Amino acid sequence: MPTMPQKIATWQMVHPTLKDKETGEVKPGRFEKTSVPVPSLSPFEVLVEVAGCGVCHTDLGYFYDGVPTVQKPPLTLGHEISGTVVAGDEKWVGKEVIIPAVMPCRRCILCKTGRGNRCLAQKMPGNSLGIYGGFSSHVPVPSIDLCEVKNRGDMPLEHLAVVADAGTTPYQAAKRADLQPGDKVIVVGVTGGVGVYVAQTAKALGAKTVIGIARNPEKLKRALKYGVDYVISSEGKAPRDIRNEFRELCKKNGLEAGFGWKIFEVSGTQGGQEIALELLSFTGKLIVIGFGMAKNEYSMSRLMAFDAEIIGTWGCLPEYYPVVLDMVLSKQIDIDPFVEVRPMSQIQSVFEEVHKAGSPARRIVLKPDF
Amino acid sequence: MPTMPQKIATWQMVHPTLKDKETGEVKPGRFEKTSVPVPSLSPFEVLVEVAGCGVCHTDLGYFYDGVPTVQKPPLTLGHEISGTVVAGDEKWVGKEVIIPAVMPCRRCILCKTGRGNRCLAQKMPGNSLGIYGGFSSHVPVPSIDLCEVKNRGDMPLEHLAVVADAGTTPYQAAKRADLQPGDKVIVVGVTGGVGVYVAQTAKALGAKTVIGIARNPEKLKRALKYGVDYVISSEGKAPRDIRNEFRELCKKNGLEAGFGWKIFEVSGTQGGQEIALELLSFTGKLIVIGFGMAKNEYSMSRLMAFDAEIIGTWGCLPEYYPVVLDMVLSKQIDIDPFVEVRPMSQIQSVFEEVHKAGSPARRIVLKPDF
Repeated sequence: MPTMPQKIATWQMVHPTLKDKETGEVKPGRFEKTSVPVPSLSPFEVLVEVAGCGVCHTDLGYFYDGVPTVQKPPLTLGHEISGTVVAGDEKWVGKEVIIPAVMPCRRCILCKTGRGNRCLAQKMPGNSLGIYGGFSSHVPVPSIDLCEVKNRGDMPLEHLAVVADAGTTPYQAAKRADLQPGDKVIVVGVTGGVGVYVAQTAKALGAKTVIGIARNPEKLKRALKYGVDYVISSEGKAPRDIRNEFRELCKKNGLEAGFGWKIFEVSGTQGGQEIALELLSFTGKLIVIGFGMAKNEYSMSRLMAFDAEIIGTWGCLPEYYPVVLDMVLSKQIDIDPFVEVRPMSQIQSVFEEVHKAGSPARRIVLKPDF
Repeated sequence: MPTMPQKIATWQMVHPTLKDKETGEVKPGRFEKTSVPVPSLSPFEVLVEVAGCGVCHTDLGYFYDGVPTVQKPPLTLGHEISGTVVAGDEKWVGKEVIIPAVMPCRRCILCKTGRGNRCLAQKMPGNSLGIYGGFSSHVPVPSIDLCEVKNRGDMPLEHLAVVADAGTTPYQAAKRADLQPGDKVIVVGVTGGVGVYVAQTAKALGAKTVIGIARNPEKLKRALKYGVDYVISSEGKAPRDIRNEFRELCKKNGLEAGFGWKIFEVSGTQGGQEIALELLSFTGKLIVIGFGMAKNEYSMSRLMAFDAEIIGTWGCLPEYYPVVLDMVLSKQIDIDPFVEVRPMSQIQSVFEEVHKAGSPARRIVLKPDF
């Protein structure tokens, strides 16, 4: 039976990593275990008992790289959340849910015209949902866009936290790419926390060919089991070398290299973006999923000559979550090999670990142990 | 009554402008009046008696800037052609027509899947249609994609030559932009030979607001009569200044500046492209129509944060030509103020004039006077 807590236990980010502009002195970011009051809930809100919350690169950006949160610290980070509704909107109490990472306002013209994923009044736990975030015992959220989890079999509820962001962003990206059965796909950064799901999503939606590009040969080998048909290691190679390798691979395998490839750039690195731009050709689409601060040099007129496109994609519409959840529960998209659960009390060391690793082998989901 | 000529009279480009790589010596390009045999016509080809052929920047690229033609010189340039069918495919003989600037092969997978405008086996008069081009008395072309001209009233047939390229490219661009009634549009390079039609096409398709950007204040004033609601002169301004001016203009006129603008870049200049990139924001689309060799510096990840797109567009599907022709004949798109007819014998001086002017006030159409 769901129980309403007295307080919300939480790991607050007291302050992020701070750098003194004049002295250059760095003050490390700090988490603190504390508790905050349970807010009063409107009939359209619920309180979710957190089963797990994934550690995303966006969280690292807030904690280490000076990316500002909408709600000024102290606040609790974390937006990749699964859990159980324990109070609020009666229709939902007792249900297991995934909380969309970005929740549209459902009132503005962008929301009304199908662009709610980029609603400018959207709320994101651990950023713009007041002080509340997923690295807590509970989180209060609007109920309208919750994704109900049913028939999960032996899949741990906390694993499904990754559906809230890493698992759904690729689906929105595929929609933006107008991915069709028979499509030819390249994933740059295929071994990363989101890349592994881009390849699997493309395959699940019927892509005929998926070529994965990344640096690490070991991880590339693993990718071949999860949606990727061919791999190219980018380690130590110039974009032009990779283009030539791509053409040879196509020739050898009877693939048309010259046009129509849909390229997903997931790395967010300058190197990855340069590879993606180099591979973009006639009637191609380059979908930008990864975020980074680098600038690229590119002749825009090439897009004209190629009749090609570069398409940015942000988040995922909550209405797509049930579709992705089905794909995950039916193992069309396999998440278990890419998820690792740790106690939430290890938050500080886990952040440090992921920050150092750059791209860890598995997504770490923190499970409350207050 | 149509008559079959003995020979095709033509102004051949003997050679383009040549620059000696070692000495740097420039040998000016040369046209020569000559005649070529009438080729034998298949049942799927026609011979068109040229009424007029527009001088396009693409022709200048071939003649002055070292852009190579597919057919090596000598060949006849010119791909913006209207005329009358005088021989060949019987269904067409006697009809007035516009010849699409790029003619798809109609056999490949791109053609079969609606991307014929970027067919890689496409033929373009004055480039890849053997030695034949529009600056001639006649031109032999496939009949499958001809656009019949009916009920043209007092519109001179030679004026309609501009529909073959400058008039139709904006329509394809609008399709690529998914232009909808009520849309908010910016045209960068709105006073150029194609820009004037982009604004009118957007308006004809129901755009609510069209903002025109260009340097010349006189030409901008004229644009206000042809599809443009507001103008911003870019003369001597940095992209950021123009963005601020755009925001002020929006504020003053009750327009939402923050999202959803469709920006057409028609100038092909680095300056114009930088303005377009600066104006691109949330859920926006930037459609690249203009061609130039410049490179741009841009952070691709902005597209991700904006959920925005950059879309290149090439040519126009022949199946759209009748739609555009209707818009022109019904004066939804006004071409007369932007066309000037000259005798074809002035080809050399006209090329020099247009090359020097950069962006002439009117498109010059050459009318055969052999």
